[in-house]
Amino acid sequence: MTALQDLYPDDFAHCYGCGRLNTHGLHVKTEWQDGEGVAHFQPAPHHITLPGFVYGGLLASLADCHAIATAAGATMVATGQVPGRDPTPRFVTASLNVDFLRPTPLGPELLLRSRATEIGERKVVVGLSVFVDGLECVKARVVAVRAPTTMRASGGS
Amino acid sequence: MTALQDLYPDDFAHCYGCGRLNTHGLHVKTEWQDGEGVAHFQPAPHHITLPGFVYGGLLASLADCHAIATAAGATMVATGQVPGRDPTPRFVTASLNVDFLRPTPLGPELLLRSRATEIGERKVVVGLSVFVDGLECVKARVVAVRAPTTMRASGGS
Repeated sequence: MTALQDLYPDDFAHCYGCGRLNTHGLHVKTEWQDGEGVAHFQPAPHHITLPGFVYGGLLASLADCHAIATAAGATMVATGQVPGRDPTPRFVTASLNVDFLRPTPLGPELLLRSRATEIGERKVVVGLSVFVDGLECVKARVVAVRAPTTMRASGGS
Repeated sequence: MTALQDLYPDDFAHCYGCGRLNTHGLHVKTEWQDGEGVAHFQPAPHHITLPGFVYGGLLASLADCHAIATAAGATMVATGQVPGRDPTPRFVTASLNVDFLRPTPLGPELLLRSRATEIGERKVVVGLSVFVDGLECVKARVVAVRAPTTMRASGGS
């Protein structure tokens, strides 16, 4: 299945976290499955906070990009489009709240699962969790808003 | 002045965000000035969300490491130690809340200023802002807790 981030328009595809056109980036990929966003991510050995544990800033970054794609997916479903097939609308983050429930061990692949809890015309709220080997390590809540036209490369600024 | 992060013990100095021993990392450096933490950071050209604007996950990462150092600094002052001279105690993040007040323009150096708003024995709350050319772009609130001994390389796990 095509990731939602791979269907962003070109001028919205440079994000360090998830843009397919950012050659230095993390390339977070969100797939749409049964009404939720699902992503897998393998942290690099240098993505640590203390030896053996995943860096919180990386977890916040993954949560951010995954939630933004989930906000887009939920909006698409609400408007009759198909996430992973149709172009993905670009949201940006208004607010990012991350609770580190326990240290996240470095080694296994991370699983991110997310769901929109509130879908407005301009604003979508997303809840998500990060799991390692079935254990919930991180919970996050993200408020996403449609990218303002002033942020488009083609829209000035 | 020596940054607080440069006075972490060696086994706490590998953080991707601020560890002097992480060769791939961001190297956030917090100085202690008149009761607050101050940091400067120059984002790289690839640290973007949309072209022209700084990536939110990077801003969350900077906020995280800067707040953790500020929690340590405030604790040191409260216990008669001198931030930037004495060894820095290591805190970890329990909760990270970031409000993106406006898009953060890419180009100028970022200024981070932070202050502890609550200092407990194990838990410290830090408020901070990120400024670009004097304009406040990001506000964050971080709950920091003393690093548990189980997270020390020398403490097992």
